[in-house]
Amino acid sequence: MTQNIPVVENIMNANDRLAQTNRARIDAAGVFSINILASPGAGKTSLIEKTLPLLKGRLRVAAIDGDIATSIDSDRAAAAGAGAAVQINTGGDCHLDAVMLHGALEKLDLTQFDLLIVENVGNLICPANFKLGTHKTVLVASIPEGDDKPYKYPGTYRGVDALVINKIDLLPYVDFRMDYFKQGIQVLNPDVTTFSLSCRTGEGLDAWVEWLVENAKKA
Amino acid sequence: MTQNIPVVENIMNANDRLAQTNRARIDAAGVFSINILASPGAGKTSLIEKTLPLLKGRLRVAAIDGDIATSIDSDRAAAAGAGAAVQINTGGDCHLDAVMLHGALEKLDLTQFDLLIVENVGNLICPANFKLGTHKTVLVASIPEGDDKPYKYPGTYRGVDALVINKIDLLPYVDFRMDYFKQGIQVLNPDVTTFSLSCRTGEGLDAWVEWLVENAKKA
Repeated sequence: MTQNIPVVENIMNANDRLAQTNRARIDAAGVFSINILASPGAGKTSLIEKTLPLLKGRLRVAAIDGDIATSIDSDRAAAAGAGAAVQINTGGDCHLDAVMLHGALEKLDLTQFDLLIVENVGNLICPANFKLGTHKTVLVASIPEGDDKPYKYPGTYRGVDALVINKIDLLPYVDFRMDYFKQGIQVLNPDVTTFSLSCRTGEGLDAWVEWLVENAKKA
Repeated sequence: MTQNIPVVENIMNANDRLAQTNRARIDAAGVFSINILASPGAGKTSLIEKTLPLLKGRLRVAAIDGDIATSIDSDRAAAAGAGAAVQINTGGDCHLDAVMLHGALEKLDLTQFDLLIVENVGNLICPANFKLGTHKTVLVASIPEGDDKPYKYPGTYRGVDALVINKIDLLPYVDFRMDYFKQGIQVLNPDVTTFSLSCRTGEGLDAWVEWLVENAKKA
């Protein structure tokens, strides 16, 4: 009668176990790894694109980009200077999982890199439920999405280690109450490391880049 | 050996069958119904909020709002003049399905309304896979999300009857190539009815409102 519950647990554990395998592999290579989550169009790929030139000569970066279709994102990462860029097309799936990352890692010689950036599928819900094995999960929020997002997507906002608030250059043109937004963060995830920046103007990117470099030094 | 395929088909059919039941109920009441899809923060709720006052005295509107958490959206719909507003909290689920809509319809006397607006969960992927039984599916895209979205989310862009391009007031402040965006639409869904508008300034809302009124007259 309660047969379904253990089955669900086993599936979750299979993903988590493979995430541990991925982590061991990443750790063995001495690489710092992040999993970037966001709504469609919040600026995950733009963030990677703007970050890579600032890391030139400091960190060697590999990028793994997840999408339902196209290789637009990995093409942009490669053009921006990623030492390697692997595209995962999920074929309709709404998130990356540890199996997909495992397959992508097979295509990389991790020992050649200091930082692995995994860009998840654009989706503020489903990716939060699947561990990949990366060290830190980074959420990219963006000003035009609105200030109520922490309240409406608590699962994702609660589970991340760092929060990038992107598109701050649009603050004068939209109705975004920063106090209300941050109040939601405070309730859900008071210790999250936060960066406010604009990929378009470059404002605020330095602190984010230093955070990556500091973490990569420790890996 | 191929046991899994019929099982998956049966699950899909159960949703589709209940969607047909929902449709029959909506049709019996002579109501026109739409299912609004979008990324988080593209402006589904703002569109409803700005549309309702313009429909005052012309259509009686009921709103059903789907979200993972909170009643923010149905509160906004009620405040904007919806004759009835029902909130569905999916408890983490990334989409509405026909079962959820069926439950919400139980709470409405549809004969009191001309238009039923169903606002789906903010997600550009999963909701496209679940028919609800509504007459038309409307996708709200927004300028700051970027011009590559049709290419990256083809399943959703392909399956909709109408496309609202929101936040056109932000065009001067972001890099959005309208030609490239519309080229993607042309390939995926050449016959889609398109509205360009700004919920913030009100520009373009009239054509959208007339489309609703025309369709409601026919229902």
